[in-house]
Amino acid sequence: MGLPYSLHILFLSWFLSAHMSCFFAVAKRSTYIVHLDKSLMPNVFADHHHWHSSTIDSIKASVPSSVDRFHSSPKLVYSYDNVFHGFSAVLSQDELEALKKSPGFISAYKDRTVEPHTTYTSDFLKLNPSSGLWPASGLGQDVIIGVLDGGVWPESASFRDDGMPEIPKRWKGICKPGTQFNTSMCNKKLIGANYFNKGILANDPTVNISMNSARDTDGHGTHCASIATGNFAKGVSHFGYAAGTARGVAPRARLAVYKFSFNEGTFTSDLIAAMDQAVADGVDIISISFGYRFIPLYEDAISIASFGAMMKGVLVSASAGNRGPSVGSLGNGSPWILCVASGYTDRTFAGTLTLGNGLKIRGWTLFPARAFVKDSPVIYNKTIAACNSDDLLAQVAEPERTIIICEYNADEDGFGFSSQMRYVTRARLKAGIFISEDPGVFRSSSFPNPGVVIDKKKGKQVINYVKSSVAPTATITFQETYVDGKRPAPVLAGSSSRGPSRSYLGIAKPDIMAPGVLILAAVPPNLFSESIQTNILLSTDYELKSGTSMAAPHAAGIAAMLKGAHPEWSPSAIRSAMMTTANPLDNTQKPIREDDNMVVTPLDMGAGHVDPNRALDPGLVYDATPQDYINLICSMNFTEEQFKTFARSSANYNNCSNPSADLNYPSFIALYPFSLEGNYTWLEQKYRRTLTNVGKGGATYKVKIETPKNSTVSVSPQTLVFKERNDKQSYTLTIRHLGDSDQSRNVGSVTWVEENGNHSVRSPIVTSMIIDVWGSDD
Amino acid sequence: MGLPYSLHILFLSWFLSAHMSCFFAVAKRSTYIVHLDKSLMPNVFADHHHWHSSTIDSIKASVPSSVDRFHSSPKLVYSYDNVFHGFSAVLSQDELEALKKSPGFISAYKDRTVEPHTTYTSDFLKLNPSSGLWPASGLGQDVIIGVLDGGVWPESASFRDDGMPEIPKRWKGICKPGTQFNTSMCNKKLIGANYFNKGILANDPTVNISMNSARDTDGHGTHCASIATGNFAKGVSHFGYAAGTARGVAPRARLAVYKFSFNEGTFTSDLIAAMDQAVADGVDIISISFGYRFIPLYEDAISIASFGAMMKGVLVSASAGNRGPSVGSLGNGSPWILCVASGYTDRTFAGTLTLGNGLKIRGWTLFPARAFVKDSPVIYNKTIAACNSDDLLAQVAEPERTIIICEYNADEDGFGFSSQMRYVTRARLKAGIFISEDPGVFRSSSFPNPGVVIDKKKGKQVINYVKSSVAPTATITFQETYVDGKRPAPVLAGSSSRGPSRSYLGIAKPDIMAPGVLILAAVPPNLFSESIQTNILLSTDYELKSGTSMAAPHAAGIAAMLKGAHPEWSPSAIRSAMMTTANPLDNTQKPIREDDNMVVTPLDMGAGHVDPNRALDPGLVYDATPQDYINLICSMNFTEEQFKTFARSSANYNNCSNPSADLNYPSFIALYPFSLEGNYTWLEQKYRRTLTNVGKGGATYKVKIETPKNSTVSVSPQTLVFKERNDKQSYTLTIRHLGDSDQSRNVGSVTWVEENGNHSVRSPIVTSMIIDVWGSDD
Repeated sequence: MGLPYSLHILFLSWFLSAHMSCFFAVAKRSTYIVHLDKSLMPNVFADHHHWHSSTIDSIKASVPSSVDRFHSSPKLVYSYDNVFHGFSAVLSQDELEALKKSPGFISAYKDRTVEPHTTYTSDFLKLNPSSGLWPASGLGQDVIIGVLDGGVWPESASFRDDGMPEIPKRWKGICKPGTQFNTSMCNKKLIGANYFNKGILANDPTVNISMNSARDTDGHGTHCASIATGNFAKGVSHFGYAAGTARGVAPRARLAVYKFSFNEGTFTSDLIAAMDQAVADGVDIISISFGYRFIPLYEDAISIASFGAMMKGVLVSASAGNRGPSVGSLGNGSPWILCVASGYTDRTFAGTLTLGNGLKIRGWTLFPARAFVKDSPVIYNKTIAACNSDDLLAQVAEPERTIIICEYNADEDGFGFSSQMRYVTRARLKAGIFISEDPGVFRSSSFPNPGVVIDKKKGKQVINYVKSSVAPTATITFQETYVDGKRPAPVLAGSSSRGPSRSYLGIAKPDIMAPGVLILAAVPPNLFSESIQTNILLSTDYELKSGTSMAAPHAAGIAAMLKGAHPEWSPSAIRSAMMTTANPLDNTQKPIREDDNMVVTPLDMGAGHVDPNRALDPGLVYDATPQDYINLICSMNFTEEQFKTFARSSANYNNCSNPSADLNYPSFIALYPFSLEGNYTWLEQKYRRTLTNVGKGGATYKVKIETPKNSTVSVSPQTLVFKERNDKQSYTLTIRHLGDSDQSRNVGSVTWVEENGNHSVRSPIVTSMIIDVWGSDD
Repeated sequence: MGLPYSLHILFLSWFLSAHMSCFFAVAKRSTYIVHLDKSLMPNVFADHHHWHSSTIDSIKASVPSSVDRFHSSPKLVYSYDNVFHGFSAVLSQDELEALKKSPGFISAYKDRTVEPHTTYTSDFLKLNPSSGLWPASGLGQDVIIGVLDGGVWPESASFRDDGMPEIPKRWKGICKPGTQFNTSMCNKKLIGANYFNKGILANDPTVNISMNSARDTDGHGTHCASIATGNFAKGVSHFGYAAGTARGVAPRARLAVYKFSFNEGTFTSDLIAAMDQAVADGVDIISISFGYRFIPLYEDAISIASFGAMMKGVLVSASAGNRGPSVGSLGNGSPWILCVASGYTDRTFAGTLTLGNGLKIRGWTLFPARAFVKDSPVIYNKTIAACNSDDLLAQVAEPERTIIICEYNADEDGFGFSSQMRYVTRARLKAGIFISEDPGVFRSSSFPNPGVVIDKKKGKQVINYVKSSVAPTATITFQETYVDGKRPAPVLAGSSSRGPSRSYLGIAKPDIMAPGVLILAAVPPNLFSESIQTNILLSTDYELKSGTSMAAPHAAGIAAMLKGAHPEWSPSAIRSAMMTTANPLDNTQKPIREDDNMVVTPLDMGAGHVDPNRALDPGLVYDATPQDYINLICSMNFTEEQFKTFARSSANYNNCSNPSADLNYPSFIALYPFSLEGNYTWLEQKYRRTLTNVGKGGATYKVKIETPKNSTVSVSPQTLVFKERNDKQSYTLTIRHLGDSDQSRNVGSVTWVEENGNHSVRSPIVTSMIIDVWGSDD
């Protein structure tokens, strides 16, 4: 099986990308990530550190000296031994060539920079102290989540250790002192804090690391860490919005912070060092909200390191990225990663607009203060209502007393809000009533001038009132937070990156959707967060942030609690439990939609929205062993070196007796090529799957199939009888599908439904055209 | 005894004031407060309502009709029967004359407008759940405090009834529905809500009462009510300052709200109706934070009604006013009122200024947001550092990035802050460093632009740094609240009105000092509270407010808990317990000072700062009976009508067998007249006092005297032996004092110290010159 045609196309695109990046590689030393086969380490070396440094020394001796500005000689940066074996080193091109001839050399690629993807959610996820995953896992108290990011603000209330029992004895990590950070800042919640920036210094030894410690100077790391593991923190809010008790998904889980992203840079070599250390330290789950754009698997350090982590039983939850809705924009789409898409919750941040005639209209606002706007005059003037001219807005008499209506901008498809807000802010108007239907408004927390956003229909009511009144007035109240029972939820964020994964098409990605829009979590208190007007900048302890960056730690927290409740579950079993119990429907029992109201597919949201309490007891899981993943990479048409980059040793490559792209995965994807002439033919794809009974005893399951359009799906057998717990049963699934001249994705599912029981084990099926995905590079 | 000379002078001044106000009385109907002798009610009337309306009817019949714009005929406004007997009515001058001939007429005076005086404090007062007045009174749960003010915001968290037992059965009040107010808004905390505005409508029947209910539209009433009785309200703050749990002084006391102050006016007739109803309803303590300027006792409705309340066992706690530091500026100085001065606590609202060289300076700020001011350039430019010119400040390049230093303004004695703030705000500078030593800064919550206030000494450090740096920068953090252990506390507010009381000189006033500066308490959430820049106005649920208005409900809450702990105590006993245990020293064990650093006297602060836990167990009290107060007014040279205005019936006047200005009061005042030539002679004043033992058993007390300058004080006997609880013992105190050519007030005390016990019962002694007090009118 496999998908060789698509892979060729894919690799071509990757090579182009990789080649392009060579323009930046000048003839000087650079940092390389080097994979070695540890089994080939010569016996003379006491340990691998010795081997690595000797290797560098021997290169130094053998290659004619070349001096670049920073590096007079080759230099070891990190040794890695957990997520894979190898090192990073500063090498010239000649030195690299020499290295390739060294014993045990597998592969090498240049260090890269990594980009970040950017609490009520525990309620939204129905986590509660009395039943389900929270009590089953003791709120995660026995598990350790490694958050690889930009560090942590240890003083945040979210990282207090109130109510935490002693640190698990198996923990081997450290609390590393550094700038503004000492070991006493760790506690029974924040059990580890480490930082990795040798890669930055290797790239430019003249750099002064301004915060040379695990302390967060950016906010992203603290936010992600508190989403996953934040303890209960009372009386917090984002400038009065979302006020209440913030808590992480796993409020008692242990946090180990690995900072690899610094103000001065974010490099692969540091990231791998962080993940290598995290696995060595004994973390159970890793959360990472960083990613690359379009990079082949064998140069994707997150993928490679995550493979190593998975092989050691550590699941990596990673963000899909925020480049949606472009098709194929997704990162972290490796088969061994839990790739997480981002959704809205059902919570709204509101202001109430009360017109002089008594009509009350709820609008959207995140103006970061309790503005007092009461019985103020409202103007509607067709000439200036586009709110796109400083000169026109300057004509408003008494702007500081006046509320202006900024009309729906049909030219911009209603997307004019952020520009209108800038003009209104500069004009110092008392408030704006912005008529907009731009979904992006509801993902952003920036709202520097008082006002509300209302939709077109309500906008007409307001304009009618103003036109028909002698002296129209309005009152606006702020800092309102409510759960909107009428609005469908969850809804996928338009910005959430989409599958399929360019790095591997054989598995539908993303895997799952988790809350990631306007999530309240901790941030360092000394940063710029929001502004009022143009000149008043504000800070906060807790902030609303949006992105798949926020979704990944949600999934990590849930995965950690599943690990806590089921210590015997493999990374694959945990992911399967989350995926097969995920909900593809929203709270109106209709298929989940995107914020532009389009129904989404598994290539947008994965199996559905994560349901942690159902994931606790999935009935059956699609498990996969390290050998299964070896068999998968055996099928990937890798060179031996590429293969060994993942699998470490040639042994497996030479013994790829059972290569199989048909990983025992809880989702199904079938792709068809584009036909210019619209001549689509029936294609057939077969899958074999094995289910493991993780229910309490024997059980019988019957299949229920939802067939995608233009397809037939057959499953055999249609009934699976599990005699006891841990019993395994297999089935085959065959999709016959026809290309679709609308190039649409067609969606179905296969669900195993327990007879006389409550479990149902659902896997999405998606058929999708592949060609255009690879045509554009975003 | 008595002080007839001074009273003559005083009355003359009053008569002038009263006369002046006649210029506003046009020849139309006005509202009059009419006192009647109920014992002279003819038998034909079934009740006093009938009598009152018949009286008006008979006047209508007897006096030729005169029609004014609003009132075609005389009209009854309110009947009063609790704090005194009588009514208010809209009458013409002729009708008033006719009324005077009616049976039972005592006196009448025109309705007037009343002016308002404007929480951590329970900690500052050392109230705690484990010992002292809080547990002894069940946090006040059995007592009812009537707050007479501008109404209440019933939805405030401070008025939730969590933890409150059932309403005392004796309660007879109502929860009156009205505009935006229904009976379900009352609960076990807010047990009554009533409102009184017939006086406003009598004054102008065309007025539309915009909030015709007990709902507060101003904030003053809600603030006062929550100071006295607010339940625990978590997670509140004034824009991030004073953040924490707000609570009233008596968090479980019952609140009955009587609204008499409306947007449309504040009239005596309504105030009396409110107090009349409060007493009828069964309140235990009344708090009122309103007062008149300089008015004779017999036309001072608060005084008259408070006399009636006191006669029925209800203590009135009233604010001294905010016209300090002028001597004799005090209101509510009647002998039967608890008159309360206002002090600072030891809490500071701060920002930290960190200079580029690392120096950290704590400054004062109440900028109402968490401004982000980090590593911004600081300028010091002698030409513009006065910060008093828009043109000069406009020369600052990049104002929105720049911190400016505004220098100590020697010309204005350091008092330039509020003006400098206005200029800096208009210039839209990023922040200001204001060098000021104006104590008024620390009573005001207005701070519209980011910045800090620092003193002259610290200002020099900052200027030196800026002058000596190439690129000086600073960081300012906000929303810091701390208890300043180094600063003396309490300190008297400069604005707190001062004694002696123009309305009666025979008793030293005020009585006591309570917290009244920047007190955090509840306000309606829909009002303008603070501003950012000139155009962003803000609202809040809890606000810092300053004034004796805030001090009076503190004292009321304490008095209420004393009543709860000692139900048998009279109003005089409660006041005595508070006064004799009050602390004349601050936390540095030095005499309490004013905010300009001057030591204060009992005519500024009363007996000292209230100490609620000590007041619970004073050992001895100076009690006084209703008859004692009758004897006091017998001594006041009142006409029979003036007398009956207080005492209701002639019976007592004709039976003034024992007139005495020597009320059994827990303080002593001796006045001397001004001598132009500096020829002061020795004066002698004798006082007799009786102490009641309210300790657990018998006790012996010895006197300890602190003699005022230029005086001798003798006490006889010097030992008082109380055989048992409730035993009474008397003593005489003689002050011989000489006038003081410095015209200073001289201060001493007499303290009865328990032998082998913990009680000490202190009364302040003050000698003061009287003349200049009455010379000026403010």
